Amino acid sequence: MNTGMPLSRVNGEAGGQLSVTDRGLLFGDGVFETLAVRDARPCLWARHMARLQAGCHRLGIAPVDEARLRTEVDELLQAAPAAAQSVLKIIVTRGTGTRGYRPDPGAVPTRIVQLHDWADRDSGETGIKATLCSLRLGNNPQLAGIKHLNRLEQVMARSEWDDPGIREGLLLDQAGRVIEGTMSNLFLVKDGLLTTPDLARCGVAGIMRDVVLELAGRQAIDTRVSDVGLDALFQADELFVCNSLIGIWPVVALNSNRYPPGAVTSGLQSRLQDYDDDHHTWRA
Amino acid sequence: MNTGMPLSRVNGEAGGQLSVTDRGLLFGDGVFETLAVRDARPCLWARHMARLQAGCHRLGIAPVDEARLRTEVDELLQAAPAAAQSVLKIIVTRGTGTRGYRPDPGAVPTRIVQLHDWADRDSGETGIKATLCSLRLGNNPQLAGIKHLNRLEQVMARSEWDDPGIREGLLLDQAGRVIEGTMSNLFLVKDGLLTTPDLARCGVAGIMRDVVLELAGRQAIDTRVSDVGLDALFQADELFVCNSLIGIWPVVALNSNRYPPGAVTSGLQSRLQDYDDDHHTWRA
Repeated sequence: MNTGMPLSRVNGEAGGQLSVTDRGLLFGDGVFETLAVRDARPCLWARHMARLQAGCHRLGIAPVDEARLRTEVDELLQAAPAAAQSVLKIIVTRGTGTRGYRPDPGAVPTRIVQLHDWADRDSGETGIKATLCSLRLGNNPQLAGIKHLNRLEQVMARSEWDDPGIREGLLLDQAGRVIEGTMSNLFLVKDGLLTTPDLARCGVAGIMRDVVLELAGRQAIDTRVSDVGLDALFQADELFVCNSLIGIWPVVALNSNRYPPGAVTSGLQSRLQDYDDDHHTWRA
Repeated sequence: MNTGMPLSRVNGEAGGQLSVTDRGLLFGDGVFETLAVRDARPCLWARHMARLQAGCHRLGIAPVDEARLRTEVDELLQAAPAAAQSVLKIIVTRGTGTRGYRPDPGAVPTRIVQLHDWADRDSGETGIKATLCSLRLGNNPQLAGIKHLNRLEQVMARSEWDDPGIREGLLLDQAGRVIEGTMSNLFLVKDGLLTTPDLARCGVAGIMRDVVLELAGRQAIDTRVSDVGLDALFQADELFVCNSLIGIWPVVALNSNRYPPGAVTSGLQSRLQDYDDDHHTWRA
């Protein structure tokens, strides 16, 4: 259950207030990360930090002081009531600025950390229903892959359905290529080949997508990152979506299409827990 | 000169602080308007309000209480030191929300008003130099035309040049069509025909663009809204950009191309001041 206001810090200060001159608000000029927290530990921290820094670099935002950010996160976690699981959101914006799009080269990035309740994210592990969204993602290679704060497309896509039985919506791009879910990346399996859409033109390159690709490599599953058409989606043997919070959710229904539970998906699901987050390796 | 922090109100409250759970920050989930203020009066108010409401409607954001917003703006203007000209920025977001893209149907929009110094916006009236940006706008008909808060493309495009002698950058879309400037709309004149790019796929439909189109109609200038290619841009007789703050700026140089001052542009420029903002008509 969501109890409303999350616990938060802005540049280390307790409280949930931000300057209205912050470019995160004015232009969506920043990046974010969403991490699972288990037993008061943010999971896949190093991977999330690497993506955060890469996103900042591509947008020309000054690098984040990771040690300081981690201290702020730890303080936030210590201040929170004990919970087996929670959700950590980290936002880094370009900082405050004068009016106008031009970034100030001297801008000091704003760090925002928020701790949210876990809510109901576990029930999809046995399989979910998904829908195909009518909104199509715009292509922009310069922004593709980055988990930036310009997320109106996801908001509009997520507005397309109300049915709580549908847990995710899948998105095509303007050319009709299958790209991702509104909050997840997508994989499909056909004749033993694991494919996930190429994100060179649009989409968010998820941390769990990387983990799944790495795991598939270790399991010697044939894997391909390529353009995916709608036909391939409907003809797949198995389909799943993934992100840092949900892990892997098999998709068992997409509109009127049905996908039986599959061995590749369940094999990846069962191996996910073997990732050793402390040593960035896989347990045997 | 920009003196830094603007005067601001958030939902009528003095001060420049916003909740970090506001969807304007989280997703760029909102719209904005930038108005010229002359002699303590926001110019083209009715037109800006119409666009603001239209943008909210398209995004599924609840309508804005215009009377209340105007009261907040007037309070802001009364609190400000007297200035012949200033810049009013109005932001409306979907409001605060729980984590996740799905909009809460009961969300109460956040109103933010900011008053900025005028800065140096007048010097372009005799003609400016512009550059062609390498960033290309992504196409998304569902968001096209709306002045929403997802503005990373403009930020990245505006980062492409440092030369203070260059006052605007022109943007193409992914297909190579000419669309707009980073902060302005674009018009070109060829053999007496006035053309501005179609914004059905991307771009911001500016208030001054509408005013110019209306004025051109009244002056019986042949006018067309259509796709514009790069060739047409370079072969134009006259070129100008416009927005609510600058009015019309002739473009006299674009990369190595030169455009002599033209009669259509100067005719429109001189007639702009004849718009009667009180009665939404043109003085004879």
